[in-house]
This record gives sequence, structure tokens and C-alpha cells, in this order.
Amino acid sequence: MPQTPHIERHFTSSEMVRDIVIGMSDGLTVPFALAAGLTGAIDSTGIIVTAGLAEIAAGSIAMGLGGYLAAKSDAEHYLKEREREKREVAEIPHEEMREVAEVFQAYGLTEDETWPIVQALRRQPKNWIDFMMRFELGLEKPDPKRAFVSAFTIAGAYIAGGFVPLAPYIFLHTASAALIFSVIMTLLALLIFGFIKGRFTGTKPVRSALQTALIGSLAAGAAFLIARLIGG
Amino acid sequence: MPQTPHIERHFTSSEMVRDIVIGMSDGLTVPFALAAGLTGAIDSTGIIVTAGLAEIAAGSIAMGLGGYLAAKSDAEHYLKEREREKREVAEIPHEEMREVAEVFQAYGLTEDETWPIVQALRRQPKNWIDFMMRFELGLEKPDPKRAFVSAFTIAGAYIAGGFVPLAPYIFLHTASAALIFSVIMTLLALLIFGFIKGRFTGTKPVRSALQTALIGSLAAGAAFLIARLIGG
Repeated sequence: MPQTPHIERHFTSSEMVRDIVIGMSDGLTVPFALAAGLTGAIDSTGIIVTAGLAEIAAGSIAMGLGGYLAAKSDAEHYLKEREREKREVAEIPHEEMREVAEVFQAYGLTEDETWPIVQALRRQPKNWIDFMMRFELGLEKPDPKRAFVSAFTIAGAYIAGGFVPLAPYIFLHTASAALIFSVIMTLLALLIFGFIKGRFTGTKPVRSALQTALIGSLAAGAAFLIARLIGG
Repeated sequence: MPQTPHIERHFTSSEMVRDIVIGMSDGLTVPFALAAGLTGAIDSTGIIVTAGLAEIAAGSIAMGLGGYLAAKSDAEHYLKEREREKREVAEIPHEEMREVAEVFQAYGLTEDETWPIVQALRRQPKNWIDFMMRFELGLEKPDPKRAFVSAFTIAGAYIAGGFVPLAPYIFLHTASAALIFSVIMTLLALLIFGFIKGRFTGTKPVRSALQTALIGSLAAGAAFLIARLIGG
């Protein structure tokens, strides 16, 4: 598959970062919110730890397997569309030649200017199909190992994130005392995580840190209020 | 922004479907797994409902706001990269012309064959920048309204999904009886959701239905075992 090194690099790192961000965002936030919410309704840290660990197990497996299937389905979608393009290039080449020309006409090129490209692609069916995949359909060839890597990256990030808010409930016996440490540790973790995430995703790090901490706080605040309203 | 109608359609529907899939997959799975897990450790449906609602609140807010920020950050990333391309086209046009030629050389075209395109783009800087965004960097112009729509789609799908496994615990008093109804209702919902998801994502519907039900079952099974080991 022809790809410039530039594009290859761009995609690989952003997918890995995206998987860590997906897993850790939810891993830090949801178990934190659940533990905080239950602290509003229950005094026993035992039940909160049980619920928290059950949530981390459920969340990491659901998100990890979800990521696995999403990557698999992207790969299948790509292969299916590639088969279709291959058929179309063989069966209705003139229609496909018109589509190549249309891609370029959208950028203000005339039919005469696109003609050499259309002719050149026509002589190389494999390159023509690859060209249509990327430039007509906007699809990148997926890495076959991505599904597994994606699953474990998301699940691992979720588990790592989830233990931060839960740790104080494991080591302390009073839920209200554990909540204070949990809030401090999780806010710190959200700020650090948001800061690093910002550096990778191109958002200003300080702004990203504050945004990430805000999401965690809002989610936890809502969970806390709901649990207190029902359980209290 | 020049885009063929074909590509526009492809992207809009797949992003909406992807948001519903993200929200509903986790919404059906995690509260189900949490409730099942707690049933292994606690008899009172009251605490399980409290924990479940707290989880639905936390999960939907965390995922919805997460989706909002992801869409915002995609939009910012696009604008930032576009500014850079704009600068490069103005400041180092010969370097950029070489990059246009390289895009096509990866598809087996010779320098002579790409020359008319390079020249034509050079005469239209706006189209040239748009061309580089899409064909060199592989970035699509994001829809400015997507961030909001994405947030509410993900959160709504999570809440809708989350109430399916939790409903039996709300209406029944015995946790073990509620668990049986919760398992049946959630498995049915996962099968239906997986089937419909398959039709949209291109995976075979029956296979998608079974895969989706399997993820939910594995996540719930793991949460159930962990909660029973600790809480039982």
C-alpha cells in the first residue's frame, strides 16, 4: 500500500494516543464518580470497593473489547470497500475514470489538467484501486495488529485510571475520609493526564488539564447528587 | 470546502452511528455488569439501584463530555494544521509542490504526469491548501455543530442503554430475582442492538449480534466474579 512516511507516522501515533485517552478518561472519571456517589449513600468502604472493582472490571472489558471490535470492523469495512472498488475498476472503468476526474475538479482543476493522471492510473489497476480508496472514499488501510493492541491499550488505561480514585477506599475504613483523599488524588491525576493529553492532541496543555478535571468533577458531582437523592 | 457529495454522506452517517454505538455499547454493558456484580455481593436492590443510577449519571456525562471535547479538539487540530499549510504554501511553495508530486508518485505516477496538477493547484492557493489538508494529511474538515450533537448522542445512547439492565432492580425487591430479568432483558437488548449495529457498520448482522452479546456477557461475568470474590 503506497503511503508517504509522513501520513503513516501521523496515523499510528494518534491512534495509540486516542486509545489511551479513551481508556484513561473514563477509567479516571467513572469509578471516581461511582465511589463518590456511593459515599453519599453508604458508609461502608467495603461495598464501595466491591462496586468500584466490579465497575473497573466491567468498564475495562467492555471498552477494551469494544475497541477490538471497532478496529476489526474498520478493517473489514476497508476490505469490503476495496473489493467493491476492484470490481468497479474492472467492470465500469469509464465511470471510475469520471470519479477520479471529479475528485480533482472539486479542487478547481479542469478536465484537461486531470487527464494525464486519469490515463496514468488506468494503466496501473492496483495503484488505481488504492488511489480510489484513499482519495474518493477517504479510507486508510488499517494495520492488522491494531485490533489487539487497541483492546489492551484501552483496557490497560482504564484499569490504571480506575485504581487512582479507588485506592483510598481500599486503604481507609471510613468512606467520608476516603472520599477526601479520592477527590484530591483524582483531581491531581486528571490535571496531569489532561496536561499530557493536551501536548499530544494539540490542545493547549493548561486548558486541556482544566477541561479534563472539569469533566471528572461534573460527572462525579452528578453521580454524587443522584446517589444522595436516592440513597440518602 | 470542496467535497464530493459521496464523501460527505459517508462521513456524516458513520459519525452519528459511531456515537450511538459508543454510547449504547457501554450503556448496556457497564451498568448491567455492575448490577450483576453487586448482586453477587449485596442482597438489597436499593443499593444496587443507587449504584446503577450513579454509574449511569457518571458514565453518560463522562462519555458525552469526552465526545464533546474530542470533536472540539479534532476541529481545533484541523484549523491549526490548515494555518500551517497556508503558511507553507505562501512561504515554501517549492517544498509544497514537491509534496503534491510525492502524493501521486506513491501511486506510481511519474513526475511528468503529475506536473499539470501541481501547476494548476499552484495557481489557486485556496484549493491547494484544501487539497493538501485532505490528500497529504488525510484530514477532513469537521462540522462545527458536531461537538454538541456528538455529546448529546453519546450521553443519550448511554442513558437509554443503562436503564435496560437497571429496570428490573427498580421494580423488584429481591436482587437475585431482578438479576434473572436483567440478564434476559439485557441479552435481548444486546442482540437487537448488535444486529442493527451490524447493518450500519457493514459487519454481518447475526455475527454482530452474537459478538455484542458476548462482550456484554464477558464484562458482566468478570464483574460478577470479582464482586463475589471480594464481597461474598
